[in-house]
Amino acid sequence: MKVALAQLNYIIGDFEGNAAKIVQNIEKAKQHGADVVVFSELSVTGYYPHDLLEKKEFIQKAEETVLKIAEACHGIAAIVGAPRINKQERGKKLYNSAFFLADGKVQSVHNKTLLPTYDIFDEYRHFEPNKEFGLVDFKGEKIAVTICEDLWDEQPTASEFGKDKLYQTSPMEELIPMKPDFMVNISASPFSYNQETWRKDVLISKAKKYHIPILYVNQVGAQTELIFDGGSVLIDANGEIVKELRYFGEDFLVIDTKNPGVKTGQKKAETIEKIHDALVLGIRDYFYKTGFKSATLGLSGGIDSAVTAVLAARALGPENVRVLLMPSKYSSDHSLEDARQLAENLKIRYDIVPIQSAVDAFEKELAPLFKGTQPDITEENIQARARGVYVMALSNKFGHILLNTTNKSESAVGYGTLYGDMNGGLAVLGDVYKMDVYGLAEFMNKEGEIIPENTIVKPPSAELRPGQKDTDSLPEYKDLDKILFNFIELNKSPKEIVSLGFDEEVVTKVIRMVNMNEYKRFQAAPILRVSSKAFGFGRKIPLVAKY
Amino acid sequence: MKVALAQLNYIIGDFEGNAAKIVQNIEKAKQHGADVVVFSELSVTGYYPHDLLEKKEFIQKAEETVLKIAEACHGIAAIVGAPRINKQERGKKLYNSAFFLADGKVQSVHNKTLLPTYDIFDEYRHFEPNKEFGLVDFKGEKIAVTICEDLWDEQPTASEFGKDKLYQTSPMEELIPMKPDFMVNISASPFSYNQETWRKDVLISKAKKYHIPILYVNQVGAQTELIFDGGSVLIDANGEIVKELRYFGEDFLVIDTKNPGVKTGQKKAETIEKIHDALVLGIRDYFYKTGFKSATLGLSGGIDSAVTAVLAARALGPENVRVLLMPSKYSSDHSLEDARQLAENLKIRYDIVPIQSAVDAFEKELAPLFKGTQPDITEENIQARARGVYVMALSNKFGHILLNTTNKSESAVGYGTLYGDMNGGLAVLGDVYKMDVYGLAEFMNKEGEIIPENTIVKPPSAELRPGQKDTDSLPEYKDLDKILFNFIELNKSPKEIVSLGFDEEVVTKVIRMVNMNEYKRFQAAPILRVSSKAFGFGRKIPLVAKY
Repeated sequence: MKVALAQLNYIIGDFEGNAAKIVQNIEKAKQHGADVVVFSELSVTGYYPHDLLEKKEFIQKAEETVLKIAEACHGIAAIVGAPRINKQERGKKLYNSAFFLADGKVQSVHNKTLLPTYDIFDEYRHFEPNKEFGLVDFKGEKIAVTICEDLWDEQPTASEFGKDKLYQTSPMEELIPMKPDFMVNISASPFSYNQETWRKDVLISKAKKYHIPILYVNQVGAQTELIFDGGSVLIDANGEIVKELRYFGEDFLVIDTKNPGVKTGQKKAETIEKIHDALVLGIRDYFYKTGFKSATLGLSGGIDSAVTAVLAARALGPENVRVLLMPSKYSSDHSLEDARQLAENLKIRYDIVPIQSAVDAFEKELAPLFKGTQPDITEENIQARARGVYVMALSNKFGHILLNTTNKSESAVGYGTLYGDMNGGLAVLGDVYKMDVYGLAEFMNKEGEIIPENTIVKPPSAELRPGQKDTDSLPEYKDLDKILFNFIELNKSPKEIVSLGFDEEVVTKVIRMVNMNEYKRFQAAPILRVSSKAFGFGRKIPLVAKY
Repeated sequence: MKVALAQLNYIIGDFEGNAAKIVQNIEKAKQHGADVVVFSELSVTGYYPHDLLEKKEFIQKAEETVLKIAEACHGIAAIVGAPRINKQERGKKLYNSAFFLADGKVQSVHNKTLLPTYDIFDEYRHFEPNKEFGLVDFKGEKIAVTICEDLWDEQPTASEFGKDKLYQTSPMEELIPMKPDFMVNISASPFSYNQETWRKDVLISKAKKYHIPILYVNQVGAQTELIFDGGSVLIDANGEIVKELRYFGEDFLVIDTKNPGVKTGQKKAETIEKIHDALVLGIRDYFYKTGFKSATLGLSGGIDSAVTAVLAARALGPENVRVLLMPSKYSSDHSLEDARQLAENLKIRYDIVPIQSAVDAFEKELAPLFKGTQPDITEENIQARARGVYVMALSNKFGHILLNTTNKSESAVGYGTLYGDMNGGLAVLGDVYKMDVYGLAEFMNKEGEIIPENTIVKPPSAELRPGQKDTDSLPEYKDLDKILFNFIELNKSPKEIVSLGFDEEVVTKVIRMVNMNEYKRFQAAPILRVSSKAFGFGRKIPLVAKY
């Protein structure tokens, strides 16, 4: 059978736009002689609509759109994903379903059985698990239709306290005895730098175990925090990847399942390159899907804002990035020079706005109230907040979205000022540890210096008091990042982390800082997710707890 | 049998503190001659620990603490709630369990069957549903032990598109045939102003349906956003409330199940009084449980900051509330006077910090960049952000927590400045519509004027430009609030709301404002929840969507 894989970028709730895209690809598949064209999970609504699924009119529109798409299916069949009302008396209101469309109609519906409800997934909030199984019988072949997690009854887990069999049932065990010729899996599997490997391992192991070819179609494109990386594949019954679609872009391929032809794949990218491409897509889609064109940010001369500016220029074009250089009396000469040099290298517009007069005004009014107190973090925060006012003024006046430049290491330990440098509509590096920010800078400079060497080699500093360095209050980033990774991604206890060779006092201090700063992260900008455990809605720690 | 109901206030993750409290109440119950003492759901950890449940050492500590508590059970039995590892090969890592403790040991464990995963509940994220049922056989009587949602197999739903039977099974149907003498339900049921009625309806209907007495023990106290209101009850087999414990406070009562004696209850409070008491508890516990003592906020002379200040003074004591009056050139004379009057009525410290010099400094530096542009919302936001810098400086310098004064109506339509008046560690009124803020003011002034009359009667204004009124850009609050309530709480569509008699253009505009401002709410302070649908983690709408 000739199957087209349509790996597309959807906008959540944009029924008209998504349907137009789907119908266009149905036509294209037909022109390519495909028998059936496959779209990704919840393609009609975009993944994931969250509580829009609780709105009656949203579900009605989804139903109407599926019927409209079905009308385009003449001389070709299609598989699309959409929510559907559970008409049983008991259970959740909806199913997460795959619709098999042919001859202008819905021919059969296949509901998702395994509903991921962990990390960033929340599907049992809205959906009832499937309990009935059946194949699609089409043109003399039998197709098993599954949805994403349905193949993940056994799964890798980053944390050692995690569990690898989260479900009571396995849809494969139900479907395989019905003797399907091949399996279609429609998916919405978000990027993290280790997800591609995990995903391929799962698909390959299932193809091998059941000796069945798997056609896997993933969503692509960013939905605020989540970046879907595509990489749809055909895996043959021996577990070999025979065809592989693009990463981080839309793609389309028609495959003859009986005769898939020569093996082709995508270039294997290093982790840093993947993160780079994911962040560029993340920025681009956030702007495109919200209807904004241009970004602003403060360039400090430091590495975080430098890397953010490069990513923004690559995502939006240098003409759409405008930065502010906001020196204070504590800024080194070099910082301003480095920032200016970067702006010139990137060909982005920059303006210089000194913050001292605003800081002076604040401090003068506060002097009577602060009489008898010593300068402390309060005065540092005033500087950061004055900068925050300036970049937000630029944002408000000209309609730029402010990009936040906080990295994951800083965010973890609360090294940043709420309502100051934590401002922003989108946190670009919020899931990238400091050492990986350096990695990104090196990657960006590979073909020639974009980020000034000095920005990369100088000791990190917030420059909020004379001679300040990050290491005054934090361990070296190479150690800090490892402690944080073990605590956050791997969920290891302080004791276990110490046993890896870190100083107990340092570990205790770092973890205390992480725990004490949940309140700051609660108000942080949405973070582009690139790891298996990002700050944001995939990690819920109580704000108030004694632990 | 003599059963003690222990309605206590726990701190999440405070195993030592919670255990001490539980053991103390076991002793007390013993002194009162109780056979068994009942504590609320997850009493050992506090409800709800969220992803702390994914940490091995957290679960180990919970297990150890249960064993330690068991050792205190000699001559008396106890029922406590704690997580427990699911040792089956398949399924989620944990159960949400009730432990029956007697003779120094765990005698039996009863797992929760129905796991709420909607609105603010997220239990299927961590827990496996129970499938095995059994009674406690103690001193010749049989006790059916259930956990909170276990009785909610049928439930009321605020939204008409909601569903009243969310689960495939009913634990009651399994337990009742085993002929229990009475039912114990350990619970953590958070307050909303209609929850008390819903809860009693469910308990009464189950007691009647199965003709069985129900002893219901709820948690009390606030856990950041969620306020648990207590109100534990004994309901007899005829569905009569025979005993009722306090609302918004710890309480303890020993009941003879065979002979409960005279019917006693709590005074029935009006909705506004309930909201008032809930907010006071919410503030008090947030401070107490984070170890902070004092609050600050900006008093504008308007009603929102006035009501917030009164609540803060009642929760923390006037000596622990310190406010800033921050007039600008657009502030009316009356505003400053009203704010001052309120501070004096409340006996809280106030200081006056004019914002003009800081605003001028910002505008002067920005002038070259803003050349050729007209004043717009940018300049209004600069004022709000300058105020934000001042209150945060006070917060940083003296360790006060900044209370946010934004009400639900404003929050819904995005009428507020991010990093300005949206600042704060806790949003006191974020789930209270403007008309209810007036209701609270009236309630507060019942016994004599605390909030100046002028603050209540003058037209609401942000005072960010000459003569500005809220109604310049918003409908009258009495209409706005109804539109918002129908859209947010009841999930009605724009068309349905128009059919209630509202102007179509107004409805469209309001709903557009709600949808466009998800990004602002994403970064808002945690909101004390008092309604069935608050902004915050119980309502997840995608930031980026075309809908």
